[in-house]
Amino acid sequence: MRNLLDTKHLGLEDALRILDVAEDMRDTQTREVKKLPTLRGKTVVNLFFEDSTRTRISFEAAAKRLSADVINFSAKGSSVSKGESLQDTAQTLQAMGADAVVIRHGASGAPHTLATSGWISAGVINAGDGTHEHPTQALLDAFTIRKRRFGADSRGRDLSGVRVVIVGDVLHSRVARSNVWLLSTLGADVTLVAPPTLVPQDVSAWPVRIVYDLDEAIAGAPDAIMMLRIQLERMNAAYFPTEREYSRRWGLDAARLRALPDGSIVMHPGPMNRGLEISADAADSPQSTVLEQVANGVSVRMAALYLLLAGGRGETPAPAGTTTTHTAEESAR
Amino acid sequence: MRNLLDTKHLGLEDALRILDVAEDMRDTQTREVKKLPTLRGKTVVNLFFEDSTRTRISFEAAAKRLSADVINFSAKGSSVSKGESLQDTAQTLQAMGADAVVIRHGASGAPHTLATSGWISAGVINAGDGTHEHPTQALLDAFTIRKRRFGADSRGRDLSGVRVVIVGDVLHSRVARSNVWLLSTLGADVTLVAPPTLVPQDVSAWPVRIVYDLDEAIAGAPDAIMMLRIQLERMNAAYFPTEREYSRRWGLDAARLRALPDGSIVMHPGPMNRGLEISADAADSPQSTVLEQVANGVSVRMAALYLLLAGGRGETPAPAGTTTTHTAEESAR
Amino acid sequence: MRNLLDTKHLGLEDALRILDVAEDMRDTQTREVKKLPTLRGKTVVNLFFEDSTRTRISFEAAAKRLSADVINFSAKGSSVSKGESLQDTAQTLQAMGADAVVIRHGASGAPHTLATSGWISAGVINAGDGTHEHPTQALLDAFTIRKRRFGADSRGRDLSGVRVVIVGDVLHSRVARSNVWLLSTLGADVTLVAPPTLVPQDVSAWPVRIVYDLDEAIAGAPDAIMMLRIQLERMNAAYFPTEREYSRRWGLDAARLRALPDGSIVMHPGPMNRGLEISADAADSPQSTVLEQVANGVSVRMAALYLLLAGGRGETPAPAGTTTTHTAEESAR
Repeated sequence: MRNLLDTKHLGLEDALRILDVAEDMRDTQTREVKKLPTLRGKTVVNLFFEDSTRTRISFEAAAKRLSADVINFSAKGSSVSKGESLQDTAQTLQAMGADAVVIRHGASGAPHTLATSGWISAGVINAGDGTHEHPTQALLDAFTIRKRRFGADSRGRDLSGVRVVIVGDVLHSRVARSNVWLLSTLGADVTLVAPPTLVPQDVSAWPVRIVYDLDEAIAGAPDAIMMLRIQLERMNAAYFPTEREYSRRWGLDAARLRALPDGSIVMHPGPMNRGLEISADAADSPQSTVLEQVANGVSVRMAALYLLLAGGRGETPAPAGTTTTHTAEESAR
Repeated sequence: MRNLLDTKHLGLEDALRILDVAEDMRDTQTREVKKLPTLRGKTVVNLFFEDSTRTRISFEAAAKRLSADVINFSAKGSSVSKGESLQDTAQTLQAMGADAVVIRHGASGAPHTLATSGWISAGVINAGDGTHEHPTQALLDAFTIRKRRFGADSRGRDLSGVRVVIVGDVLHSRVARSNVWLLSTLGADVTLVAPPTLVPQDVSAWPVRIVYDLDEAIAGAPDAIMMLRIQLERMNAAYFPTEREYSRRWGLDAARLRALPDGSIVMHPGPMNRGLEISADAADSPQSTVLEQVANGVSVRMAALYLLLAGGRGETPAPAGTTTTHTAEESAR
Repeated sequence: MRNLLDTKHLGLEDALRILDVAEDMRDTQTREVKKLPTLRGKTVVNLFFEDSTRTRISFEAAAKRLSADVINFSAKGSSVSKGESLQDTAQTLQAMGADAVVIRHGASGAPHTLATSGWISAGVINAGDGTHEHPTQALLDAFTIRKRRFGADSRGRDLSGVRVVIVGDVLHSRVARSNVWLLSTLGADVTLVAPPTLVPQDVSAWPVRIVYDLDEAIAGAPDAIMMLRIQLERMNAAYFPTEREYSRRWGLDAARLRALPDGSIVMHPGPMNRGLEISADAADSPQSTVLEQVANGVSVRMAALYLLLAGGRGETPAPAGTTTTHTAEESAR
């Protein structure tokens, strides 16, 4: 893999490969020493044009577990805010030795431009661009669904026939978009639930079903229900009347939680607005995978960094049984 | 040790254990290579809801000397400022693999809530909460007093009979509170000196003597005098009239410095307001332990992190004579 | 070397030593594992009183390649902004274990004060002070000129007879000052081109020629032309009338690029104001060394850190052929 820019153009084979490597990575995180020497000497730059402590820290933890050096570059207060172009910023980072650039940008398509312009040869990972995509979020969501469904027997499995309902502000959500493409590629049946004003114009071209009534969608007995975060700062009266109204019609409360079939899971990308799109009952219920999603996020990002920076050689990252030897060799290099 | 939340409930045995491990840690800092492999693969998160570059850097240096990975999480600009709860933030950090959370918070009791709520299993260290406590500051102060008094012969010693005077804004000072409890536990005699308006209401229940006149306290021949930082932003006319008046009555100037007995030490937690609570003469005098306190702070924080993350096994961190072997084994793991 | 404060007082021998060690460092950056164990256990503090993401990241990357621990200290929001003195800040950092302090400060002379006051024993590197100096920038510029001229045969060479033209706001530029002194020491012929209002008063004492017409300077067939960044925030009508006028008279455009002799190089310290002091044609031309300068900056800063923290022992950092053994020994220590 050269880059990870979106899930729309991510094929089934590559998607499964990332998910399977993430399984290997997850296994390493239960060891006494969680750190792998795999990316020692590699430099990962977190190039964040928008604040996102959560995503930045997840990538930072992933890179450090693989022994990469991490440099955080916040565009605020930098030469970027003095008008430097994305090209010059990226080329500068690469000249300083960046092997991978993890980019979050307010403009949809910025990571794609960075990766395909020929400006840099470093690998590019999209950590969220405008309302476009957030591929590692979708991968960690798919990983979580698969893990809950197949447990230790997850490797190699797709999500054929799994029913997923995604609820909320689909219009502005890069998380929803990335999930729609990836889950479809993996064979899942996706239903979107949103207020009519928060459905994208082009949704008829998406491989999904749309309903406007959350209870109707829940009646369909989904295997997973994913509540999107309401970003209050993006909202205004044109989209929905009041928080109370939103919560009543499209929030996951205790009654709807009970209406879900046994074994179905409740997902949220975080941070949650408790009491708005999700009630505390739902957030803290045994069906909730919110914290598993966070933990799996580190594994999925380790996998992505591994495949971009050490991959293509057909190796597994840290094969069981050979770890000690492998580590000793790396240390002695 | 599971957590380090306060000194009020820290028993004598635990206090001495931290101080003694800190002695071991201090010894390692004089080596050619100051770094120990002890916490390799562990992740320490600095979760700071208030700015404190000084304390954050001290913990960061301590964790890195022990080979832990450090992730700095400043609540400003993060999802916390978008209304995420402490519970969700902490659980998210733990899900990302945090083994210890070093928390500074404006609300007294936040670290205690975090540690005892059952939200997380990671160890919690209080790095300052409201006007409540700042236990590692008190531990480094006690370490400094003990070291100046007993030198290489410090291990295992308490502070029986040592006279300590603490001067300044006791009302708002978590440093004063943590010192009062810890120094008393260690057997020291503590005298507080403060303007009447800056004495807490409940001070009669504290194991201290109160005087309002600094010269009277100095006449008592203290072994250590600790000047608290005046936080000008907290002050107003209700507390004290002017800086000049404060300095004249409760500041440590050259004359008062001369009035101290030989061998007594001058302490300050930093950063100092030179010319206000402490004069330059006093700050830079041979009796001043200001910089020793800073250096000892790293050792004490190494000890706390060690005991939370590697401790409970009865090991010493890096026994002299076995270090090379120990390190080689860790490297090869 | 104890410190690196300026180039005005940097002798030829020391300058060549830094450049030659930087050659060694550059060679290590082409290896599979770019990381050297040389400064393991050392702590480098980036003490930045002015924002400069670019320079800070370059030092951070350099220190991490040498396995040092890096602590970033931004003066904003710290106790420094609460009025702490430079002395107390620096002594605190050293007490926490800083072995080197990389300082950027708005006041000319602050690094010199820090290094010569006796406050600290840690090495000090000036990363830019007021309008005074920015020595590592000049060293990376000299390194780049030498490398383009002599290639693999650069070691030990000075720049005798090399013609360098520096163009722009010389008055406010620490980059220009550091380059003037270093390039002269290395034997280069330096010509400054600037609007009359942007020439320093004391320039007659500098070892340079001044011209006011860029085309005249280009007619002199320079080997290198260095375009300074126009800092718009420093400009006003007293210095130059309009951006358009500046660009027309002192900007490097396509026509002037063509007028340069074959083999001459175009330099810029970055970040560039494309279309103001340099056109996109010039910035992206094969003669442009902008990105080489950035890459060489990491090597030069590795050399400076090495010479301050590990140097003085007559060792080369990682002699070819012995690296594996050396690394293994370090790892096992």
